Amino acid sequence: MNAEQLRRLLKKVKSGSLGVEEALDQLRFLPYEDIGFAKLDHHRSLRKGFPEVVLCLGKTVEQVAGIIEHLLPVTGTILATKADPEIFAAVRELAPEARYYQLANLIVIGGQVATSRGEFILVVTAGTADIPVAEEAAITAEAMGNRVERLYDVGVAGLHRLLDHKRELFKANVIIAVAGMEGALASIVSGMVDKPVIAVPTSVGYGASFQGLAALLGMLNTCAPGVAVVNIDNGFGAGYLASIINRRRKRGR
Amino acid sequence: MNAEQLRRLLKKVKSGSLGVEEALDQLRFLPYEDIGFAKLDHHRSLRKGFPEVVLCLGKTVEQVAGIIEHLLPVTGTILATKADPEIFAAVRELAPEARYYQLANLIVIGGQVATSRGEFILVVTAGTADIPVAEEAAITAEAMGNRVERLYDVGVAGLHRLLDHKRELFKANVIIAVAGMEGALASIVSGMVDKPVIAVPTSVGYGASFQGLAALLGMLNTCAPGVAVVNIDNGFGAGYLASIINRRRKRGR
Amino acid sequence: MNAEQLRRLLKKVKSGSLGVEEALDQLRFLPYEDIGFAKLDHHRSLRKGFPEVVLCLGKTVEQVAGIIEHLLPVTGTILATKADPEIFAAVRELAPEARYYQLANLIVIGGQVATSRGEFILVVTAGTADIPVAEEAAITAEAMGNRVERLYDVGVAGLHRLLDHKRELFKANVIIAVAGMEGALASIVSGMVDKPVIAVPTSVGYGASFQGLAALLGMLNTCAPGVAVVNIDNGFGAGYLASIINRRRKRGR
Amino acid sequence: MNAEQLRRLLKKVKSGSLGVEEALDQLRFLPYEDIGFAKLDHHRSLRKGFPEVVLCLGKTVEQVAGIIEHLLPVTGTILATKADPEIFAAVRELAPEARYYQLANLIVIGGQVATSRGEFILVVTAGTADIPVAEEAAITAEAMGNRVERLYDVGVAGLHRLLDHKRELFKANVIIAVAGMEGALASIVSGMVDKPVIAVPTSVGYGASFQGLAALLGMLNTCAPGVAVVNIDNGFGAGYLASIINRRRKRGR
Amino acid sequence: MNAEQLRRLLKKVKSGSLGVEEALDQLRFLPYEDIGFAKLDHHRSLRKGFPEVVLCLGKTVEQVAGIIEHLLPVTGTILATKADPEIFAAVRELAPEARYYQLANLIVIGGQVATSRGEFILVVTAGTADIPVAEEAAITAEAMGNRVERLYDVGVAGLHRLLDHKRELFKANVIIAVAGMEGALASIVSGMVDKPVIAVPTSVGYGASFQGLAALLGMLNTCAPGVAVVNIDNGFGAGYLASIINRRRKRGR
Amino acid sequence: MNAEQLRRLLKKVKSGSLGVEEALDQLRFLPYEDIGFAKLDHHRSLRKGFPEVVLCLGKTVEQVAGIIEHLLPVTGTILATKADPEIFAAVRELAPEARYYQLANLIVIGGQVATSRGEFILVVTAGTADIPVAEEAAITAEAMGNRVERLYDVGVAGLHRLLDHKRELFKANVIIAVAGMEGALASIVSGMVDKPVIAVPTSVGYGASFQGLAALLGMLNTCAPGVAVVNIDNGFGAGYLASIINRRRKRGR
Amino acid sequence: MNAEQLRRLLKKVKSGSLGVEEALDQLRFLPYEDIGFAKLDHHRSLRKGFPEVVLCLGKTVEQVAGIIEHLLPVTGTILATKADPEIFAAVRELAPEARYYQLANLIVIGGQVATSRGEFILVVTAGTADIPVAEEAAITAEAMGNRVERLYDVGVAGLHRLLDHKRELFKANVIIAVAGMEGALASIVSGMVDKPVIAVPTSVGYGASFQGLAALLGMLNTCAPGVAVVNIDNGFGAGYLASIINRRRKRGR
Amino acid sequence: MNAEQLRRLLKKVKSGSLGVEEALDQLRFLPYEDIGFAKLDHHRSLRKGFPEVVLCLGKTVEQVAGIIEHLLPVTGTILATKADPEIFAAVRELAPEARYYQLANLIVIGGQVATSRGEFILVVTAGTADIPVAEEAAITAEAMGNRVERLYDVGVAGLHRLLDHKRELFKANVIIAVAGMEGALASIVSGMVDKPVIAVPTSVGYGASFQGLAALLGMLNTCAPGVAVVNIDNGFGAGYLASIINRRRKRGR
Repeated sequence: MNAEQLRRLLKKVKSGSLGVEEALDQLRFLPYEDIGFAKLDHHRSLRKGFPEVVLCLGKTVEQVAGIIEHLLPVTGTILATKADPEIFAAVRELAPEARYYQLANLIVIGGQVATSRGEFILVVTAGTADIPVAEEAAITAEAMGNRVERLYDVGVAGLHRLLDHKRELFKANVIIAVAGMEGALASIVSGMVDKPVIAVPTSVGYGASFQGLAALLGMLNTCAPGVAVVNIDNGFGAGYLASIINRRRKRGR
Repeated sequence: MNAEQLRRLLKKVKSGSLGVEEALDQLRFLPYEDIGFAKLDHHRSLRKGFPEVVLCLGKTVEQVAGIIEHLLPVTGTILATKADPEIFAAVRELAPEARYYQLANLIVIGGQVATSRGEFILVVTAGTADIPVAEEAAITAEAMGNRVERLYDVGVAGLHRLLDHKRELFKANVIIAVAGMEGALASIVSGMVDKPVIAVPTSVGYGASFQGLAALLGMLNTCAPGVAVVNIDNGFGAGYLASIINRRRKRGR
Repeated sequence: MNAEQLRRLLKKVKSGSLGVEEALDQLRFLPYEDIGFAKLDHHRSLRKGFPEVVLCLGKTVEQVAGIIEHLLPVTGTILATKADPEIFAAVRELAPEARYYQLANLIVIGGQVATSRGEFILVVTAGTADIPVAEEAAITAEAMGNRVERLYDVGVAGLHRLLDHKRELFKANVIIAVAGMEGALASIVSGMVDKPVIAVPTSVGYGASFQGLAALLGMLNTCAPGVAVVNIDNGFGAGYLASIINRRRKRGR
Repeated sequence: MNAEQLRRLLKKVKSGSLGVEEALDQLRFLPYEDIGFAKLDHHRSLRKGFPEVVLCLGKTVEQVAGIIEHLLPVTGTILATKADPEIFAAVRELAPEARYYQLANLIVIGGQVATSRGEFILVVTAGTADIPVAEEAAITAEAMGNRVERLYDVGVAGLHRLLDHKRELFKANVIIAVAGMEGALASIVSGMVDKPVIAVPTSVGYGASFQGLAALLGMLNTCAPGVAVVNIDNGFGAGYLASIINRRRKRGR
Repeated sequence: MNAEQLRRLLKKVKSGSLGVEEALDQLRFLPYEDIGFAKLDHHRSLRKGFPEVVLCLGKTVEQVAGIIEHLLPVTGTILATKADPEIFAAVRELAPEARYYQLANLIVIGGQVATSRGEFILVVTAGTADIPVAEEAAITAEAMGNRVERLYDVGVAGLHRLLDHKRELFKANVIIAVAGMEGALASIVSGMVDKPVIAVPTSVGYGASFQGLAALLGMLNTCAPGVAVVNIDNGFGAGYLASIINRRRKRGR
Repeated sequence: MNAEQLRRLLKKVKSGSLGVEEALDQLRFLPYEDIGFAKLDHHRSLRKGFPEVVLCLGKTVEQVAGIIEHLLPVTGTILATKADPEIFAAVRELAPEARYYQLANLIVIGGQVATSRGEFILVVTAGTADIPVAEEAAITAEAMGNRVERLYDVGVAGLHRLLDHKRELFKANVIIAVAGMEGALASIVSGMVDKPVIAVPTSVGYGASFQGLAALLGMLNTCAPGVAVVNIDNGFGAGYLASIINRRRKRGR
Repeated sequence: MNAEQLRRLLKKVKSGSLGVEEALDQLRFLPYEDIGFAKLDHHRSLRKGFPEVVLCLGKTVEQVAGIIEHLLPVTGTILATKADPEIFAAVRELAPEARYYQLANLIVIGGQVATSRGEFILVVTAGTADIPVAEEAAITAEAMGNRVERLYDVGVAGLHRLLDHKRELFKANVIIAVAGMEGALASIVSGMVDKPVIAVPTSVGYGASFQGLAALLGMLNTCAPGVAVVNIDNGFGAGYLASIINRRRKRGR
Repeated sequence: MNAEQLRRLLKKVKSGSLGVEEALDQLRFLPYEDIGFAKLDHHRSLRKGFPEVVLCLGKTVEQVAGIIEHLLPVTGTILATKADPEIFAAVRELAPEARYYQLANLIVIGGQVATSRGEFILVVTAGTADIPVAEEAAITAEAMGNRVERLYDVGVAGLHRLLDHKRELFKANVIIAVAGMEGALASIVSGMVDKPVIAVPTSVGYGASFQGLAALLGMLNTCAPGVAVVNIDNGFGAGYLASIINRRRKRGR
């Protein structure tokens, strides 16, 4: 929505031909920028409360760079997920302040300041191999301004490691449970707490894990209510969802 | 946790042999009642913020009746899901005040009073055939004390029906999107709002819907972040999850 | 292997034309009875330590009755699994002493005397709806002469119910964990003990449980070693396997 | 069908031993050229309205080159799909005028002149990563003489980008909707227009997209009628189908 | 969109506050009727060229009747698919002129007059058991005003039956190929003609047909370009798609 | 191909306008009878060596009866597979000599005389529950004029039952191995003999047998070469295939 | 079975302590050579009519070489399937006369002399990309002493290419149909002939071919009886099976 | 559980505020070491009878090295499974005595001394390609102090190789059956013996083996009772399970 468009819309409101509420709704939907191979949704921040995020999977290095080049002047926060080092090299050319979290394959430019106080999101993993996905979730949530705590490698093979951290579980506002193999962690955690548990199945495992299918099905069939499932390896989605749930409360206070 | 057990625990706290925090943790975990074919988790209300719910699937009429008979003296709210009329007949013998929502296969005894004010949960369906699952979600959330609004049959075949209700979408605190077939509703809704969208795939459809698999996969792969998926036809789980998310905000205010 | 056959074999041994070891091997393999639509493996008891078991699935009432009629004079113990009441009616005609465990769809004739002392097999279930499969396992093991203890409805939605019975878990010689839905019980139990855990996925659940597939995959991918998986709803197989593992120890003492 | 064969056939017609209609039918079926590892269907152009297309997948470079070498003297248009640069290098040796569309892995030799007037095919994609498949469709349709318009990256995460181009959707004669992940674009588009929508699922995505299965199932289960689905990543098939539908109309006018 | 709404819109156009094009767009999107459990898309006829169709699957008899009761005064043509006799009984109460095609489980009220001249749609089946789905397609297309020809039981087990009807294949404007089991019919037909072939997999078959999956996959993987696939058993979708393709041409002439 | 058609064809041959070989080819392809809902392939007997077989699945009683009514005057042998008693009742009206093999759901009218001498086909099953499918195979082969021997219930749980019949295995000309559950019988048998083994997976089993998928995959992956697999429960297909293989040899001698 | 063992067996026969038939049976089962990581089944040639074949998949180069080193002195024919060039290099060290068919990944040492007369096996493919699997089948059959004819690239996209070779189809004794994608070739061919058709699905294709699953299911569900299916890409298995079927006839004459 | 924690616990016991049994239970659950990316379960040895095992899959070289560095001072036995040579290089830096079994991708440090006397575990494989998984099982069991015997390449294609070793099968205390492709070995072996058979499906095979799915399903559906199944390629799990079963017996004596 460029200036000209905006001007016309406001004139309509002024003249009374467009109601305030209708104008608001139009504003929620209109603006994006067409760069040929992509239509940048500059207005997403207004509508969704967070700017558009770049999923690098299946895009060429040039496309990712082109998208970020056009996003940079418009938004304070850019996330690029599933990004390999080659993509990061191209992004750093454009934005020297870009940070690369290699384990999580995540690029962050700007982002809100993570706080260490107040309601927090707890990210737990069943094992060490689940950490890349967990970090994708944690860093996403931090870039969205949340306090995040981590509790890694507390899977059900040694349940006492989890029970030993009951207090963190009880204190968290939202919990993200990241697990591959049989994915039982989500059920265990959700059975213990009264808050939303976002379950992220990972492709960690082999054989009949079928690249995360076993964990996914397990989490969908949890006998403990209160579990929300996202796609296999979708750490970003979990961090985003946790953030908008957590924000509810913080804004409320 | 009967009186005797409680007395002993409190004596320990008094004598100082048990710290206050430790006692709290024990209280969160201990009490249940063993009736042979079931172990009733009377303490779930304290731990999870809502009493144990009876999933009738695979249980005999006698088992369901036996469980409810033991829950009745202890809890103010009982939900029994996937309940057929025969089960309801047996339950009404025990609790004449029980209400049966036949479309949703749901029995409710007691429950909190649904309010018509404040933050609300919006339940939307793609079609008319998705209503049974949607009602399971809506009634569950109402029984947990939430205000619930319904918006049915606004699937993507006639998108204007949904766009016409943008305002309800913008006002809701949490949205439950119920859809079978291709399940696109969840993506559409989530692309428009900045709040959590709980996606419930239904088994509505035929052929390559594979009893809800198509909708489930579609919802897990949504390109619009902020979507939490539950099991196919799991209206109860969606209503429960929406409720604990909604509660966050309400408590906050 | 009828008397005539046996006589010839023994003559060979006596005459030295057949070694003792070779004769033994032949004895392990030979005898069965051909009744047209079935070849009754009368010798299985010698070879496997337990007589042939009749899986009723897919057999006509007449076929089951015919098989049992021929087994009755030969063996002291007959098990018929997945048997419906119509089959039992026919069996009772032949063997008035036959016992029918309706919940488990199991017919037992004879069988060893279950003992209440010594090493025991513990059968645990996640929920009430898993009990039919659990009973199939438990009764099978009892008919094979084992002491069996039951611990039902201790699934992960209320973990304290399980933790409260740690002592039974620690004391058992073999554990059978029966669970549908996400099947996490097997992992939890196996993570706590140093003995074999036989995991039985059940078809309890709906939607993405896919008739037990979710539980099956979960159990196969357990992160806690020491878990043996059998087919979905295969209570008999679990009871049988537990019995031959338990027997090892008992014979040893 | 070489000259000799043709001569004989025509003689029969002339002599009356073969009716005109029968001769026509034979002409539709007969001619091809056998080069050992392939039988080139030189007559396909007559029968199908477009010459044989070379799917490079699973063929050696030598085989593709051999096929094209024999097609060159016979046909004015050659398409080779799923072609990697090594194959193109070999083809360029034979036909210096060959054009390589690297993003689409497509080689075109000759082809009809794409027009910029008249009825057009609109190719829309949900995201940037779907462009390679979309280009395969678009270039195929152009090589078959159609006017093609492109509308890329208008997926449902930012629905206003699509709604903003309603006019193009309304004006197109046929629409090709290319989408991975949940594939909802096809349903949305088809719900808005009264023309055929050809849905192309792509393998873009990860985890539970299962290499395009989620998009495929979603598109097959669309609740908006008027959707035709082709294989995952089959841009060529979509372009071809759109072309023969579009041709209907153009011929009609 | 009732009269009042229309009047206001037209006033805006007259006053110049709304452009003609914008008004058109709004007209395409606005009107529907809310009857609680359904939102009737009365405007679909304008937008899609055919009124809303009622898929009876998963709806109660009362819901279907309620929907049709509200559609009757507004539209000249009503189709109800996957309708059983009980539903038809209720519909006939409301609309005595309703026709029930039992083999196809299809109810038609009104509908355009099928013509016997001009461009036609050819519906072919592989076997006799595919006829119900084929009739759903054929009657749908007829109700949409198309001339339809039928060619049943010409599957590849006796290819000469199909080859014997080459002339019908060559003359048709659009072909619908309906087949279960291996679904090869679609490939064969498409290899012979230069027009769109709409492939409908059916659930006819057993064993590894997996309720139509085999036919579906076969049709998606056809080596003959020009094939559009719809959902398993989706005769209605095929008839609808064929109709909007066929209409192109007829309007053109 | 009626008399008139034949006459014309022969005249052409006589006049020399049609070569002998071409006439033969036409004879292989032409004749069928169109009865509306079916096109009866009366010529199949000539082309395939056996008349058309009626698969009753998905056909109405009236359709099956209509087909058989038209086949009766033309062919000496009619097979109708997957036929239930209601269908048989209708068929017996038309053909009192029809025989019904209820276990195999097979109707036979006429058929060749099974011989008890010469090369034979051996049908083996793993269990009693596999007999219906085995009988479908055996009776089909007998109706096609083969000598058939049966060896039932020799599955791998009691291998000695099979090893005890090695001589039959060695003597048979073709073997059909019918097995559900894990389907290992086919591998075992094929590892012992030097003749074709036709493997028929059955849907016998439960849980992870997935209606015969386990047996099907097992048989396809056999490590013993010489195994031909047919569809799950396709006894007819196995009997037919065995017959045309067996015929090879018999003709040879 | 070394000389010593043989001597003892023969002595028994001579002394009458072992019947001739029993001795024969023992000879069929006994001899193999244990080389640690493999037990070479030297006797397979006697039992199966063809020596053991080496499947290289999953074996190290050293293991394959070791096996072939031990087979060389014992057998006149060695086949090694799925062999890459590195393996061939090692084999040629041991057997300079070894031939490598790179397209088919097949190594042949010795083998019978393929004849160009008499009954032949016809190998047909749908496309050029199916040739590697077809060659594996053809060369296997030739190495087993059969006359083999090839007919490649006659898939259903250009059916006249196949119909043009009807005579070859009619003359062949056994047909091997090799096809990927939808695999319709097998049904077409089998519908035309009265001889066994061995169907080999290949992994040629992409997207919803799911690595050959589509072709496999299509072939299993063929509506034309007389089709035997082997594993995806199992050219060897098809060639072997065709050979033992073909041998029947040839021996017979 | 460090010294300080232990001291406090013991003081409680001494003072009587903690019973002996309760103290024992706490000891079973408490101690682990938190190194950030992992929580080392130092106490597993006490609880499970064997120290924590490192599954290298999905872990970086640094993470594996870090874990082993912390385990080294605490435990006498370390196993690292699915370890590639690069990981071994890093481990050898820390523990020069580490042994690498390359075929099995297994690192062992310390471990109990395998004995050559007493009850033994027998590891059998169907083929040579199954040996890597079998060795993972065998070496694991040896490192846990068991006597292990190996019997490789005795699959059902040459059954006499297995029957020739009946005596080993009869003598073993526990049997591990490792097989890919159709996985029939487990059923055959279990049908012959009266002891637990642990079935390990492997991913050996191609086409419709679907990376071990065929073998997995086959083993789960075995018709011979007494089979315990573990995950595809899970040699470690099988070795571990066999060891705790074997230990039962040994302790018993």
